[in-house]
Amino acid sequence: MLCDFYELTMANGYFRKGYQDKITYFDVFFRKVPDEGGFAIAAGLEQLIEYIENLHFSEEDIAYLRSRGIFDDQFLEYLRTFHFTGDIWAVPEGTPIFPNEPLMTVRAPAIEAQMIETYALLCFNHQSLVATKANRVVRAAQGRPVLEFGARRAQGADAAVVGARAAYIGGVAGTATVLSDQVYGVPAVGTMAHSWVQMFDSQYDAFRAYCEMYPQNAVLLVDTYNTLKSGVPDAIRAFNDVLKPMGITKCGIRLDSGDITYLTKAARRMLDDAGWTDCTITVSNSLDEYLIRDLLLQGAQINSFGVGERLITARSEPVFGGVYKLVAVEEDGQVVPRIKISENVTKITTPHFKKFYRFFGNDTGKAIADYLCVHDETVDDTKPLTIFDPDATWKKKEVRNFTAKEMLVPVFRGGQLVYQQPALSDIRTYCAGQLDTLWDEVKRFDNPHRYYVDLSRKLWEIKYKLLEKPY
Amino acid sequence: MLCDFYELTMANGYFRKGYQDKITYFDVFFRKVPDEGGFAIAAGLEQLIEYIENLHFSEEDIAYLRSRGIFDDQFLEYLRTFHFTGDIWAVPEGTPIFPNEPLMTVRAPAIEAQMIETYALLCFNHQSLVATKANRVVRAAQGRPVLEFGARRAQGADAAVVGARAAYIGGVAGTATVLSDQVYGVPAVGTMAHSWVQMFDSQYDAFRAYCEMYPQNAVLLVDTYNTLKSGVPDAIRAFNDVLKPMGITKCGIRLDSGDITYLTKAARRMLDDAGWTDCTITVSNSLDEYLIRDLLLQGAQINSFGVGERLITARSEPVFGGVYKLVAVEEDGQVVPRIKISENVTKITTPHFKKFYRFFGNDTGKAIADYLCVHDETVDDTKPLTIFDPDATWKKKEVRNFTAKEMLVPVFRGGQLVYQQPALSDIRTYCAGQLDTLWDEVKRFDNPHRYYVDLSRKLWEIKYKLLEKPY
Repeated sequence: MLCDFYELTMANGYFRKGYQDKITYFDVFFRKVPDEGGFAIAAGLEQLIEYIENLHFSEEDIAYLRSRGIFDDQFLEYLRTFHFTGDIWAVPEGTPIFPNEPLMTVRAPAIEAQMIETYALLCFNHQSLVATKANRVVRAAQGRPVLEFGARRAQGADAAVVGARAAYIGGVAGTATVLSDQVYGVPAVGTMAHSWVQMFDSQYDAFRAYCEMYPQNAVLLVDTYNTLKSGVPDAIRAFNDVLKPMGITKCGIRLDSGDITYLTKAARRMLDDAGWTDCTITVSNSLDEYLIRDLLLQGAQINSFGVGERLITARSEPVFGGVYKLVAVEEDGQVVPRIKISENVTKITTPHFKKFYRFFGNDTGKAIADYLCVHDETVDDTKPLTIFDPDATWKKKEVRNFTAKEMLVPVFRGGQLVYQQPALSDIRTYCAGQLDTLWDEVKRFDNPHRYYVDLSRKLWEIKYKLLEKPY
Repeated sequence: MLCDFYELTMANGYFRKGYQDKITYFDVFFRKVPDEGGFAIAAGLEQLIEYIENLHFSEEDIAYLRSRGIFDDQFLEYLRTFHFTGDIWAVPEGTPIFPNEPLMTVRAPAIEAQMIETYALLCFNHQSLVATKANRVVRAAQGRPVLEFGARRAQGADAAVVGARAAYIGGVAGTATVLSDQVYGVPAVGTMAHSWVQMFDSQYDAFRAYCEMYPQNAVLLVDTYNTLKSGVPDAIRAFNDVLKPMGITKCGIRLDSGDITYLTKAARRMLDDAGWTDCTITVSNSLDEYLIRDLLLQGAQINSFGVGERLITARSEPVFGGVYKLVAVEEDGQVVPRIKISENVTKITTPHFKKFYRFFGNDTGKAIADYLCVHDETVDDTKPLTIFDPDATWKKKEVRNFTAKEMLVPVFRGGQLVYQQPALSDIRTYCAGQLDTLWDEVKRFDNPHRYYVDLSRKLWEIKYKLLEKPY
């Protein structure tokens, strides 16, 4: 029942018009990368799979719908045994993705395809948003671990738990959220809050007690009162008194306020002077990719980052604009393309049942272009291929010595799951590997190179013929 | 298990130090109204109540924690029977709230108080964010209904379902999300997507079919191909052919793209000229309070608004920065205030177990100031009272002829729920009534009047004495 009401009013309408078995094709795609970035990262498929496998209407659901007084009895009867019987193709989670390419295609009877619209978009939009943002933050940190700390500022419980999953796909090293570890295996980490320090009669007592409790993982929060005057000195004293006699050199401090560059440089000197050169410095406090980049440019002495609200909500641009659009219907066994035009040129869809390839250069291993074509076309990558910009068709490029990889993989076939969902850590590894196929120019934060997403000649002609029809 | 890992490491520490029964006081408060607004709206208490009532650790939870290898056996044993035994006071949902006042106070044994931190913040931050944003949008619409359409762009399933609940508290008239209606009673509405129009051989056929299906609620989406050339004309034709013979004059069109001012003025004229003066015009497409204000200033002809991603994610500022801070501990039955100082002055907390009053002018009924004091103080509103700005203490104001209302109400007492949660529609009505007590100056979008949140002399002195202690 996590759907939009119009899906039910339309479904009831399709049912009454006898369209319930009419085969439709819907694409999920997006139009713009958040933060003016060069690419996004697909995520959320696993949660959609779970949803579709469990999709049904309970007696309570049907009673609720009946109470609304606008649905036909036969339709409500039909919902009793409703389940998904269609086909779904999608890009694997962790794949770098670009605007205007089909990231998921649903082929199903009209009502079924319509009913999964909201949840498909919700899963894809939310997790792709967070995975994409997390990867920006991780890239800014230049190899230093980034920890996801955002649950308390997340937009609801799923945003926290599933959001940490998406952040992990995007490359964070762990999360503060325990449930994300328990359910998805995202490593959960954490040591102390300011309240721990406040609870004791003195800061030193609090630090000492913590070192005694967790000598192998003593990361002390040093900014409850005054970082340099008492926080770092009390931490060093506790390390000296508890860890040193145990022969432990691994420890850490965390800062959550103040000027990070100044404080970390000063703290580093104090720690080194006291012989705690292996003590790591973790910082948090409203960080994002831009602040992290600046801190590192200024030589801040940081070993790892805790990133909260600006990652888990993708604060700088908290919406991933994926849409779900009808692209074709079957009539007498023929796939007939459909288009949506709109006054806004950017809202025009690319019609038809499609597939898409990613071309990789055989010499570099790098991705050259994505290529959308009609479902029955095939690219022969043993021969050169001329591709062109679909908006500026005079801009052409000949691609040669390349490997064409089909990006959409079968997920459901006749309602049956045919996709073996990888383990989360494998998705994360796959993601990192796929990102290596992108040129640095595409990964720049500001004004990145626009990666080519082109249409086959056949698909382009179908689209422009539909555009020129009088409506 | 939706908590931060550090809550568990600290809890284990408190347990080992014998602090598990030490009574602590934590406040929830926030520091800044999103979007530079003059006030926020509290929401999320109901979900926190549910959480606390069900709070426990299952055998699987304990097995997971044991597998982490850092928790004491006695502590894990203690978690087996863990439940909340403390007291909670909170402002009712729908209350206008201001920075730096305690919106919830938790009095509980250290471990219990610490364990609910993440969820308390998550509920409060998320729903207060959306309720506050929704109210901005609703105010911009100047009495025209606003519908919440954002599920597909929400940050996870809870963000959609619970978000619609929060938006309803903030004043929206309904939602597209069916589950929010079924679970919370937020009225769900919706008619058709572009796919309905695309599914038929012609737009007129699609409109006609819809009018026949739902003659009482025929709202047609007119921008699939060309709004003015075919969308509105086809809609009028369908209204004429289906609704007119039935004597129905109530109907509607919806626009989801293009220049809303231009198109709605033109569409209004076309509808009026055709005799469909009762036909409403609903618009959607990336609306927020600023665009709605501008559209109405330009005379756009709009009867209601559908607002999606910019409301459900609070896109312009998607984080509500509520925090959960230790303010006191009990020692030998005495309440001892505790402070957190920090290098950032804005991150300094107001210590102690507090209560707070809102002063209403007896002549106007309007809210004058909020007044925080120590738990054992009482305001006598039969006499004039001098209040002062806690940061600029020379700024004084004498309040007279006022009623002082205590804002925090008991929710849990000794772990038992003592609060009768109102029905959602009553919360929404209460919210609207409370907003009437705010001066328009506080409700301005840009540069609103800063509402007074003052401290009693006694509380102020306790805070500054703690600040001057050497740390």
